[in-house]
Amino acid sequence: MSTSLQHRVVAEFIGTLFLLAAIAGSGIMGERLAAGNVAIALLANTIATGAALVALILAFGPVSGAHLNPAVTLADAWRGGVAWRETPAYILAQLSGAIAGVVAAHLMFGLPVLSASTHARSGPAQLFSEFIATFGLLAVIWGCARSRPSTTPYAVGAYITAAYWFTASTSFANPAVTVARSMTNTFSGIRPADVPGFVAVQIAGGFAATLVFQWLTPALRAGPTAVLVEHNER
Amino acid sequence: MSTSLQHRVVAEFIGTLFLLAAIAGSGIMGERLAAGNVAIALLANTIATGAALVALILAFGPVSGAHLNPAVTLADAWRGGVAWRETPAYILAQLSGAIAGVVAAHLMFGLPVLSASTHARSGPAQLFSEFIATFGLLAVIWGCARSRPSTTPYAVGAYITAAYWFTASTSFANPAVTVARSMTNTFSGIRPADVPGFVAVQIAGGFAATLVFQWLTPALRAGPTAVLVEHNER
Amino acid sequence: MSTSLQHRVVAEFIGTLFLLAAIAGSGIMGERLAAGNVAIALLANTIATGAALVALILAFGPVSGAHLNPAVTLADAWRGGVAWRETPAYILAQLSGAIAGVVAAHLMFGLPVLSASTHARSGPAQLFSEFIATFGLLAVIWGCARSRPSTTPYAVGAYITAAYWFTASTSFANPAVTVARSMTNTFSGIRPADVPGFVAVQIAGGFAATLVFQWLTPALRAGPTAVLVEHNER
Amino acid sequence: MSTSLQHRVVAEFIGTLFLLAAIAGSGIMGERLAAGNVAIALLANTIATGAALVALILAFGPVSGAHLNPAVTLADAWRGGVAWRETPAYILAQLSGAIAGVVAAHLMFGLPVLSASTHARSGPAQLFSEFIATFGLLAVIWGCARSRPSTTPYAVGAYITAAYWFTASTSFANPAVTVARSMTNTFSGIRPADVPGFVAVQIAGGFAATLVFQWLTPALRAGPTAVLVEHNER
Repeated sequence: MSTSLQHRVVAEFIGTLFLLAAIAGSGIMGERLAAGNVAIALLANTIATGAALVALILAFGPVSGAHLNPAVTLADAWRGGVAWRETPAYILAQLSGAIAGVVAAHLMFGLPVLSASTHARSGPAQLFSEFIATFGLLAVIWGCARSRPSTTPYAVGAYITAAYWFTASTSFANPAVTVARSMTNTFSGIRPADVPGFVAVQIAGGFAATLVFQWLTPALRAGPTAVLVEHNER
Repeated sequence: MSTSLQHRVVAEFIGTLFLLAAIAGSGIMGERLAAGNVAIALLANTIATGAALVALILAFGPVSGAHLNPAVTLADAWRGGVAWRETPAYILAQLSGAIAGVVAAHLMFGLPVLSASTHARSGPAQLFSEFIATFGLLAVIWGCARSRPSTTPYAVGAYITAAYWFTASTSFANPAVTVARSMTNTFSGIRPADVPGFVAVQIAGGFAATLVFQWLTPALRAGPTAVLVEHNER
Repeated sequence: MSTSLQHRVVAEFIGTLFLLAAIAGSGIMGERLAAGNVAIALLANTIATGAALVALILAFGPVSGAHLNPAVTLADAWRGGVAWRETPAYILAQLSGAIAGVVAAHLMFGLPVLSASTHARSGPAQLFSEFIATFGLLAVIWGCARSRPSTTPYAVGAYITAAYWFTASTSFANPAVTVARSMTNTFSGIRPADVPGFVAVQIAGGFAATLVFQWLTPALRAGPTAVLVEHNER
Repeated sequence: MSTSLQHRVVAEFIGTLFLLAAIAGSGIMGERLAAGNVAIALLANTIATGAALVALILAFGPVSGAHLNPAVTLADAWRGGVAWRETPAYILAQLSGAIAGVVAAHLMFGLPVLSASTHARSGPAQLFSEFIATFGLLAVIWGCARSRPSTTPYAVGAYITAAYWFTASTSFANPAVTVARSMTNTFSGIRPADVPGFVAVQIAGGFAATLVFQWLTPALRAGPTAVLVEHNER
C-alpha cells in the first residue's frame, strides 16, 4: 500500500463529493428541463451518473481504489483488502464527501444548502430492488477486480447505467449516496425515514454477493492480499 | 479449463438472471415513465440492456465465458469450445437464470411473479429480423473472440444496442431471453405462441454466422481449442 | 498481408451490409416510434449507428481493416496501405454490401425491396457539411491508426456519433453509404440527384485530411507500409 | 518531445476547431429538431460533445497532447509539461481554432459567419458551477495522466458528458470554448459580458485542482518531466 491513508481518505472525499454532485445536480437539471417527462429526466440523470462513475473511478482508483461507497469498503475489508482499522476513515470520508457533494449541487443551482427530502421510497419492492442493485454492483466489482481490474471503471459505470432503469428504486446501491440523497428535496431525493431500510438491504446485498463470489472465483478465495478495486493494477 | 463446471454453471445462471432483470425491468420502468412515447421507452430499454451486457460479460466472462445465450453455447460447442457433454448444463442454467431474472424484475416492480405475454411478434419480417440479429451477434463474437477477446464485452454491448433499433423485432437474438420474455406481459414480452419461430431462426442465424466465420478467419478454422468467449484471454 | 483478398472482400461486404442495415433500419424504427419528434428519431439513429460502427470495426477489423467506406479505402491506398490493384474489389464489395444492407433493412421492416428517396439534401451548406464530416473522419482514423490502432473502433464510433449532430447533413461521410441511402425512401434517405455532390466533397474531404496528417504525423510520412486500419495491430 | 512545436500547434488548432464545431453545431441541430424540449436538445448536445472529445483526444493526443483548452495548457506548463515559452502558441492555436470551429458550424447550418450571443450566464451560482466544472476536469486529467494516460480520452469524454448536466452552467470548463461560444447566438452561446467571469473561475478551478493533485499523487509531485496529456504513453 504505497499511498498513505491520509491521501487515500482525501481521494475518497473528493471522489464521493463529485459523485453526489453528479447525481443530485443532474437530477435537478433534468427535472428543470424535461418539461414533466420523467423518462427524459431520468435518462439525463442516468447518463450523467454512469459517465461520472467512469471518470471518477479512472481518476481516483489509482490513489484510493475509488470505492466511493461504504458497502464496497466493508466488502473489501472483509476480503482482506483495506485494513479494518482504516475502514472508519474511509466510510467517514465517503459520508462527508457525499453530503458535501449535495451541498455543492445545491449551490450550483441556487438552492438552499440542504433540504430534507419528502420523496417516499419504501415497501418490499423498493427494498428488494436495493438488495438486487447492490448484489449486482458487488458481483460486477468482484468479477472484474481480481482478473482484470483495468476494466472495473467501465463495468461499474455500465452497471449503474443499467441498474438505474431495471430496479424500481433507481439503484442507490450505496449507503453514503443514500444518506446524502435524503438531504436534497429534489429529483434524486429519498425521505430520511426510508434511509435505514435502504442501507440495511444494501449492506446485505453486498455481503451476499461477496459470499457468492468468494465461492465462485478462485482468485478471490485465495485470501488476504490487497484487493482494493483498481489499486493493484499499477 | 481451470474453472469447474459447477462454478461455470452458477456464473451462467447469475449472469443470465441479471441480463433478464435488466431487459424486463428497464422495459417496465421505461414504459411507466415515458408517458406513451414508445421511442423514449425503447431508448431506456436499449441503454439499460447494452450497458448491462458490457458489465455482465466483463464480470462473468473470466468464470464461464459469459455466454448467457444458448445460441452462443451451441455455436461454441460446435467449434470445439465448451464440451458437448457440458452443453446441457449451460443451457439449463441460462434458461432457469433467465426465468429467475424475469421473476426478479416482476418482484422489484411489485408485479405478479410471472404472466404470459400477449405481445404478438410474428410474420416473416419478424423472423427475418431475428435471423439477421443473431447472425450479426455471432459474427461479432467470432470476429472478436479469437483475435482480441478483451474487446468482446464492448463489441457485444454495442452490437445489441444497435440491433435493438435496426431490427423490427428489437433483436432478442437469444433463445433463453426469448423463452423468459414470453413470461412477462410487459413492454419486453413476446406471446408464447411466437417463441418457437424466434428460437428456430435464432439458432439458424447463429449457425450461419459460425459457418461464414469458420471460412473467414483462419484462427477459427484452426480447430478444437478452447474458444469460450473471454475465457482464454487470461 | 496474411488474409487473402477473397476473405477481406467478403468481410467488407458483410460489414458494410450490417452498417447500412443499422443506419437505414434504425432510421425506420426511430421514425415509426418517435411520434413526430425528429430529435428523438435522430437520437435513436445516432446511437444505433455509432454503436454498430464500434461492434463492426472490432469484429471485421482483424480480417479486412474494416474500411466499410470507399473514401477510407482510397486514402489508405494512396498512403501505401491496401494495394491499388485490390482497391476496386474493396469498393465494389462496399457498394454492393451497402445496397444489400438497405435491402435487408427494408425486408426486416416489411417494406419494398428498394425505393428511391425523395429526401432533398443539397446546397452549399450541405456540401460543406459533408466535406467537414469526411475530413474529420479521416483525421480521426489517421490520428489513431498509426500510433494506437486498437483505439480506432471506439474513435470512429464516437466521431460519427458526434458528427450526426454537428453537421447539417447528419454526416454521411461515406460514398457507399450515400449511394445506398439514395435507395431508401425513409428517414435516412437522400435524393439520387444529390448523391454525386455528396460523393465528390466526401472524397475531397478525405483527401484533404490525409494530406494534412501526412504532414502532421511522422509515422504517416514514413511511407508505404501496411496502414490498413486495425490490421497491423495483431 | 519528438514532435515539433509547429506540428503540435496545428494539431491544437484543428482539434479545437472540431471541438467547437461539435459543441456549437450540435447545439444548433438539437435546438432545431427538439421541438422546444430543452432537455432533448441538451441531451443531443451532451452526447455529441462527449463523443467528440473521445475521438479528438484519441486522434490528436499522440501529436500535441490534445489539450484543446488553455486551462489545461496552463496547468500542464505549471507542472513542468509543455514549456512556458511554447504556452502562448498553444493558447493562440486553441483560441483561433475555437473561433474557426464556430465559423465552420455556422457555415454548415447556413448561418451568418459570427454573431454575438445574447444568452445571459451570470451570477454566483453560474460562476461556482464553472469553478467546480474545471476543478473536476483537471482532477480527472491529473488522476489519469500520470498513472494510466491511455484512459484519459475516455475519462475526459465521460466527465464532460456528466458535467453538462450536473453544473448549472452546462460546464464550459475551457476558456477557449467560452470565448468562442460568445460568438454564436445559438443554443450554446454565452453573452460576451459574461466571458471574463467564466474564464477567471475556470483558471482558478484548474489551478486549485492541480494544487490538490500535486499533493495527492506522488507521480505528479515528482517534478518537471513531460506531463502532456496522452503524450508520453507511446
